[in-house]
Amino acid sequence: MNISVLGCGRWGSFLAWYANKVGHKVTLWGRSDSSNLKELKLKRSNEYLRLPESIELTDSLEKAIYFGDIIIISISAQKLREFCKQLRENSITDNKKFILCMKGLESSSGKRLSQVFKEEMGAMVSSAVWLGPGHVQDFVQGIPNCMVIGSEDIEFTKVIVNALNSELIRFYYGQDLIGNEIGAATKNVIGIAAGMLDGLGYSSLKGALMARGTREISRLVRAMGGNDITIYGLSHLGDYEATLFSKNSHNRQFGEDFAKGLRFEKLAEGVATIEALQKLSSIYNIDLPICKALYEVIFNKKNIEKELLSLFLRPVKFEF
Amino acid sequence: MNISVLGCGRWGSFLAWYANKVGHKVTLWGRSDSSNLKELKLKRSNEYLRLPESIELTDSLEKAIYFGDIIIISISAQKLREFCKQLRENSITDNKKFILCMKGLESSSGKRLSQVFKEEMGAMVSSAVWLGPGHVQDFVQGIPNCMVIGSEDIEFTKVIVNALNSELIRFYYGQDLIGNEIGAATKNVIGIAAGMLDGLGYSSLKGALMARGTREISRLVRAMGGNDITIYGLSHLGDYEATLFSKNSHNRQFGEDFAKGLRFEKLAEGVATIEALQKLSSIYNIDLPICKALYEVIFNKKNIEKELLSLFLRPVKFEF
Repeated sequence: MNISVLGCGRWGSFLAWYANKVGHKVTLWGRSDSSNLKELKLKRSNEYLRLPESIELTDSLEKAIYFGDIIIISISAQKLREFCKQLRENSITDNKKFILCMKGLESSSGKRLSQVFKEEMGAMVSSAVWLGPGHVQDFVQGIPNCMVIGSEDIEFTKVIVNALNSELIRFYYGQDLIGNEIGAATKNVIGIAAGMLDGLGYSSLKGALMARGTREISRLVRAMGGNDITIYGLSHLGDYEATLFSKNSHNRQFGEDFAKGLRFEKLAEGVATIEALQKLSSIYNIDLPICKALYEVIFNKKNIEKELLSLFLRPVKFEF
Repeated sequence: MNISVLGCGRWGSFLAWYANKVGHKVTLWGRSDSSNLKELKLKRSNEYLRLPESIELTDSLEKAIYFGDIIIISISAQKLREFCKQLRENSITDNKKFILCMKGLESSSGKRLSQVFKEEMGAMVSSAVWLGPGHVQDFVQGIPNCMVIGSEDIEFTKVIVNALNSELIRFYYGQDLIGNEIGAATKNVIGIAAGMLDGLGYSSLKGALMARGTREISRLVRAMGGNDITIYGLSHLGDYEATLFSKNSHNRQFGEDFAKGLRFEKLAEGVATIEALQKLSSIYNIDLPICKALYEVIFNKKNIEKELLSLFLRPVKFEF
C-alpha cells in the first residue's frame, strides 16, 4: 500500500521508517518551515534513526494526501483541529484511511482526538487510533512491543492492523475508543507525577502511584461510557514502563525537572492533558485527585511536595 | 504495646526497628543457629540497619511469645506450617494477636499463608496479614510508603493498624484476604518474569507484562472467590515498582540472573510461588500463561526466550 505520514518529529519519522520496513511505499510530510524536515532532507537521518532513500520527503500536504491510501497523522495533539481545517481545504480526503497516532486530549474542551477529527472532517472520513507502549529508541534496535489499533468499526480496524502488523510491533484490536484514547492521553499525566516523585527522591511511591493512578482514570472512563478495565490494558497500564520508568519519557523527565526547579525544553503533552482533565472532571462530576494535584502544582504554583505526598499519606482508610 | 517479631532476616529486623520507632517495646527472635541473630547480637546491626539497644534479642521462642501482645511472623513462607507446630508446642498463644508479614503460597498445596496458619493454630487464634510495597533500604532513609493490613475481622484489622500506623508507613485496611494474599505472593512471580525480560534485553516489554500479568492474576483471584479488582491495589500492582523495577528486588534479580545463566545466591520466594500456582491453576481450572511459561522455563528447562517472548508476540487478537 501507499502510506503517508503527516508530521516528521520523533514519532512521525519513526512511523515512516516502520511503514517502509513492513513493505509499504511511504511519503513523509512536514511543514515547509519545519526544522525536522529540513534536517531529514539534508541528512536523511535525525537523532533517532536513518530513513531509507525510498521514503519520499515532502512539504506539500496535497501531494502527501493524494499519495497515501493510509494516512497516519502524528503532530502535536493541540494542533489537530487547526490541522484538520488545512486537510479539508487542501485535499480530497474521500476513501482515505486515517490513523491518529498521537496521545492527548484537546485542552480547551477535554475532547478525545478522534472526536476532534470527526467534528472537523465529518463522519464519512474513516479514522482509527494507534496507541500503546514503545520507544523509538528501542524499536530501531529491533526490540519488539505490543500496541493497540482501534476504531469504531472492527472491520476497518482489521484492515489497518493487517497492513501494519509485524514481528516488531504486534497489534491488538482495540474495542473501546473512549477507554483507549483517555488511557493513552492520561498515562502522560501519571508519567509527569512519576517524574515529580523521582525528582523529590520518592521514587518508591511510584508503586502506590500506579495503583491509585489507574483507579482514578478507570473511574473517569466508566463515567464517560467506556469500559473501566481498558485502563489496565496496553494503552494505559501497558505504557507505564515506557512512561513512568524510562529515561526516554519526555513526560516523566518534565515532571522530574519541574520538581527540581529546572526548565524542560521539549514538549510534555501531559501538561495540556492535565488542563483537559480539569474539564472532564467537571463535566462528568468525577474526582481526579492526582490530576487535580498536578494542576494545582503546575498552573497554580502550589507546593509540590505537600500536594503530591498528601495524595499518598492521607489518614488511614479503606483502599477501595 | 509489647511487640515480638519472629524472624530476623532483612524484613524481620526491619519490622523490629519499625515497631520500636513507632513507640512499642520490642523483642526480636531468631533461631539459636541463625547467623542473622548472631550478627545482630554481635554488632546490633546488619547490612540494612542498626537496632536500638532497647530492642531485646532472643532465641527463646517461649520468651518471645510470652512478651508480645502483638506477634509478627516474618520467616520463609515455605517454613510456616512447621513453625506453627513449634509455636503450639512451646507457648501459650491465647489472646495473642498474630500478624503474618510474608509474601508467598505453600508450594505443595497452593494454600495461602493465613490458611496454613489457621489450619495449624486453630480458628480461635487471631491473625492478620501485612502486605504491600516498600524496601527496607528506603524506609530506613525515611522514605515513606503505603501498605495494607487485612484480616477476616475489620475490628481486629483496625486495632492492628492503629498500633502500627505512622508517617513512614501509611496503612490501608484490606478487606479481601484472598485477593491481597494471592496478589502479594504473585507479584514476586511477575517480578521474576520482569527480571528475565531485563536479562534478555527486552525491558520495554515490562509494560505489556504489567498489563497481562495483572489480568492473569486477577482472573485467578475471581475464580478463588476474591475480588478481582484487589490485584490492581497496593498488594499487587502497587508493589510492582519495588518488584519489577528495583535493583533491590530479589525476585527480579533472580529472573535477570537466570536469563543470563548466572547463579543467584539469595532466596527468591517467587520460585516456590510458581509451583503453588500450578496447583491453583489446576484446582480452579484457570489458564495462567505467564506463570506456566515461568514454570516450564525454571522447572522443565524450556527455552526462556521462546517461552517468554511468545507470550507477548502471539498472532493478532483482541486484547480482552
